[in-house]
Amino acid sequence: MIDQDSIVALATPSGAGAIAVIRVSGHDAIAIGASVFQSVRGKDITKQKSHTLHLGHIMDGQKTIDEVLLSIFKGPNSYTGENTVEISCHGSTYIQQQIIQLLIRNGCRMANPGEYTLRAFLNGKLDLSQAEAVADLISSDNEASHQIAMQQMRGGFSNEISILRGELLNFASLIELELDFAEEDVEFADRTQFYQLLNRIELVLKRLIDSFAVGNVIKNGIPVAIVGEPNVGKSTLLNALLNEERAIVSDIAGTTRDTIEDELVIGGIGFRFIDTAGIRETVDVVESIGIRKTFEKIEQAQVVIYIVDGLRLATDTAGLKHIKVELEKIKNQFPLKPLVVIGNKADRLSEGQKAAILEEIPSIMLISAKENIGVEELKATLLQFVNTGALRNNDTIVTNTRHYDSLLKAFEATQKVNHGLQTSLPSDLMAIDIREALYHFGMITGEVTNDELLGNIFANFCIGK
Amino acid sequence: MIDQDSIVALATPSGAGAIAVIRVSGHDAIAIGASVFQSVRGKDITKQKSHTLHLGHIMDGQKTIDEVLLSIFKGPNSYTGENTVEISCHGSTYIQQQIIQLLIRNGCRMANPGEYTLRAFLNGKLDLSQAEAVADLISSDNEASHQIAMQQMRGGFSNEISILRGELLNFASLIELELDFAEEDVEFADRTQFYQLLNRIELVLKRLIDSFAVGNVIKNGIPVAIVGEPNVGKSTLLNALLNEERAIVSDIAGTTRDTIEDELVIGGIGFRFIDTAGIRETVDVVESIGIRKTFEKIEQAQVVIYIVDGLRLATDTAGLKHIKVELEKIKNQFPLKPLVVIGNKADRLSEGQKAAILEEIPSIMLISAKENIGVEELKATLLQFVNTGALRNNDTIVTNTRHYDSLLKAFEATQKVNHGLQTSLPSDLMAIDIREALYHFGMITGEVTNDELLGNIFANFCIGK
Repeated sequence: MIDQDSIVALATPSGAGAIAVIRVSGHDAIAIGASVFQSVRGKDITKQKSHTLHLGHIMDGQKTIDEVLLSIFKGPNSYTGENTVEISCHGSTYIQQQIIQLLIRNGCRMANPGEYTLRAFLNGKLDLSQAEAVADLISSDNEASHQIAMQQMRGGFSNEISILRGELLNFASLIELELDFAEEDVEFADRTQFYQLLNRIELVLKRLIDSFAVGNVIKNGIPVAIVGEPNVGKSTLLNALLNEERAIVSDIAGTTRDTIEDELVIGGIGFRFIDTAGIRETVDVVESIGIRKTFEKIEQAQVVIYIVDGLRLATDTAGLKHIKVELEKIKNQFPLKPLVVIGNKADRLSEGQKAAILEEIPSIMLISAKENIGVEELKATLLQFVNTGALRNNDTIVTNTRHYDSLLKAFEATQKVNHGLQTSLPSDLMAIDIREALYHFGMITGEVTNDELLGNIFANFCIGK
Repeated sequence: MIDQDSIVALATPSGAGAIAVIRVSGHDAIAIGASVFQSVRGKDITKQKSHTLHLGHIMDGQKTIDEVLLSIFKGPNSYTGENTVEISCHGSTYIQQQIIQLLIRNGCRMANPGEYTLRAFLNGKLDLSQAEAVADLISSDNEASHQIAMQQMRGGFSNEISILRGELLNFASLIELELDFAEEDVEFADRTQFYQLLNRIELVLKRLIDSFAVGNVIKNGIPVAIVGEPNVGKSTLLNALLNEERAIVSDIAGTTRDTIEDELVIGGIGFRFIDTAGIRETVDVVESIGIRKTFEKIEQAQVVIYIVDGLRLATDTAGLKHIKVELEKIKNQFPLKPLVVIGNKADRLSEGQKAAILEEIPSIMLISAKENIGVEELKATLLQFVNTGALRNNDTIVTNTRHYDSLLKAFEATQKVNHGLQTSLPSDLMAIDIREALYHFGMITGEVTNDELLGNIFANFCIGK
């Protein structure tokens, strides 16, 4: 299955920058590198040590394309496990293209998406879940998702799964051995130990499966709905939350990112605001006609911020009563959904007015988005709703839908084996269930695999990785 | 003037990619690198050789930020001439920021634009015109501009200037010596040799100054005006020219560039279409009211494509006459401007019609932009108008306005010296003119420099270079 041909791709983001890195991997990578590279010191790079850097020129015949640094990695001590050269050239897109085209003319082919990491997997440098973590790591944009990807890349739960699978495999072979001696009615596999193992496996799987809810939310951001009437300060609030975080990002010049207005990171956790534009347009949020729309937003959210005009609460008795009714409706409809009630424009309220409002709606947080009063407290409250206990404890968290799926199937199969054990199912039938459990375990770590699965996984990678 | 502090910046384009490279340069670069890096083999990187690569983890205390490759370059054998480490990390913007912030906390500061190249210049790794070529190289987007930048970076004309400056400096010191013996009326400097040197300098300067016209055009693209009435096929023609070239670009997946509709590269030369949108809107191009607008476009162009509807020429006698009048107007107004007259929609003309048109307007090229007939011939014609003789002959070409300016001033000063020599100007007055010439020579190579000049040059660089 392993292709021996040499592949080439740009490893750095496309576009102009100070430098760009072009990566060549494959059996002939160093020879191909040597065919286009002229060392300034006249060195023969095919004779240089692994993990060394060489200054020279990329030559297309007599024509100099660029002055570059060339790195040599000799297999198996490289990312892919194959011979690899990396060319650090000047970051002009024209130069990048020229060098890649030259390498293609000299025997490389363009790499497919994720092909470097696929080769690393096929060469045993990474297991499958580690390989998948590489893509997560690259797309991580906050502390929590970064930490989870990092943990998964360093082994994470796949070590645990791998060990359990090994133990299960042991029992499987003992039970299959029993089949050979079926006439003699012997038991090679200690049923008590086997039962204990199955229980241990179920516990681990249960924990991992449960972590997916948290993991998924951390990976994609906590969905938050901000609901409220127009002009109560929804976008001012969003900006107040956003601006501060942006300041952190802009500490580093030159790393400008696309503005994603409705996503922000608080305390390392990503929050994703659901279709806030839509909500902003919902004029009649407290009217009975509009409430259905609001309910839809709340349905999708994990946390709801209900924002009202504090000034109105203090001065308009009918308005206050109306809002209390609406709040009750939401609470009745979603008794378990975390709800933060915000009274905005608190800077324009007297202490007496504040006290009166708190008496009517005890759970309300009085803030001023405009004057940045109470915004920090709101952030702290949002963070409290996130169950990050697992994250903080460095427990393993499953974020990948494919893993989740395999874990669920492995759990079912294990339960079947367990049930078979307790009902003294014949060994041959039990062996089938055990094999199924083993299969799903193996799907996570890549000990069991097929081309289609690998194709699906690596198609989601960027080219160059 | 050289700062000894360590600077850090992202060297690769911003955004997510497979990998990103962070560069640290300065006296303490390796020590700072060591303070955040943990080698997987437990190596102490401060004790490793220059030009070696090391696999390990970037650690923020106990927290792992990323698995990276770290390159070590020991001064003076680095780009800047200082100690340098380059960190190849996973290409997540979050990780990039974390590592840069960590390095800043460990004693680096954020690099200014072009500060790496500025340090390379200050440490004598590059002369000033070579340093400027680095920025040109990064922004080069076609063969011609790439070749010129490459040539300049490898020494280019600054070597020549430097040698001439040395010879002139020689004479200068002899002439200044004469001042010390003014009473004795001796001549240390051989006037004949000096005269020959001045003539040689003038010749070289003249050639370089003349090359600027070509160089400027190559660097920025040849300005071309496409003029013509609406619906004669201007945009179809542009697309026909463009599409083919785009196919070359898209040969390489993953290097998508922003679409620049009105710029294209033909045979390695960039062509820039002047405000074609504006021209497209000029409805009354052949009317006397509209002709002024058309003239403005033509004024700015180096080549003019005048496109007419071939079908109209064949069938509308009044139209044909009108167009002939307009053509005459343009030719009279711009007798020296290269003009290509295109009769479009040739696929719908009979051979007889074509012959009749050619009889009326002998210089016309009959093409079909839609059917891609004659487009190759048009490209060849466009290329003919470009004086690339100098480029093909590998002669030095000046593209930088600052150099052009210094060359002009040096030329003037040299002429003054020459005139002084011929009119037997007293040595003390001649010495002043020589010093001025020397000053302008030195401005090109950086042998004479000041902070303001350096500030202006390097402010145009990107951060990380």
